[in-house]
Amino acid sequence: MLAAERLNATFAALADPTRRAILARLAAGETPVTELARPFRMSLPAISKHLKVLQRAGLIARGRRAQWRPCTLEAAPLKEANDWIAHYRRFWEGSFDRLEEYLHQLQSKENKNAPRK
Amino acid sequence: MLAAERLNATFAALADPTRRAILARLAAGETPVTELARPFRMSLPAISKHLKVLQRAGLIARGRRAQWRPCTLEAAPLKEANDWIAHYRRFWEGSFDRLEEYLHQLQSKENKNAPRK
Repeated sequence: MLAAERLNATFAALADPTRRAILARLAAGETPVTELARPFRMSLPAISKHLKVLQRAGLIARGRRAQWRPCTLEAAPLKEANDWIAHYRRFWEGSFDRLEEYLHQLQSKENKNAPRK
Repeated sequence: MLAAERLNATFAALADPTRRAILARLAAGETPVTELARPFRMSLPAISKHLKVLQRAGLIARGRRAQWRPCTLEAAPLKEANDWIAHYRRFWEGSFDRLEEYLHQLQSKENKNAPRK
């Protein structure tokens, strides 16, 4: 898969709250599929569909141990997504910087206008 | 919009290479729609659809100046996406740590087995 295709698959996989919740659950450790399904009030086939999307994006790996096929989190695609978003960091940090600057200006104006004791 | 819905919209918007390229272009400054369309060999209606997805996700704002309605990047949703992904940082950093540890072990084994000069 090309980097662009991997990003497509990763972001598409993350665009669903159930899939994000599954990853959050797996962050606590490998989990059998039946246990993953429990909190979502979803059928096993519905959960299996979500797991397939996550697996195709490389976000989870599934064990081969016959009975419970545990799922584990795979973080490499998250790192790639993080790296892509990080290019835009200056935009959100920039806006906080500007806010901070503005608050400083307000404060120094207030200090000037305050009656001297 | 709830935080979960905002994340759904943001990640879905980022799951397309054209939309990511539009954001990359806007990172260089506000841009008229006609100029955004140029590098993609896409019709204006096709680009407009992408812009609508980005706008619904709050990732761009569109000016109201009649002739060229410039688009600007809005970084707040990227910050939220970044914050979500950041929870998993220890997983990818952890795996590099483990790799590093493994390489150290290999190296010290090699040093042991190396013939003394």
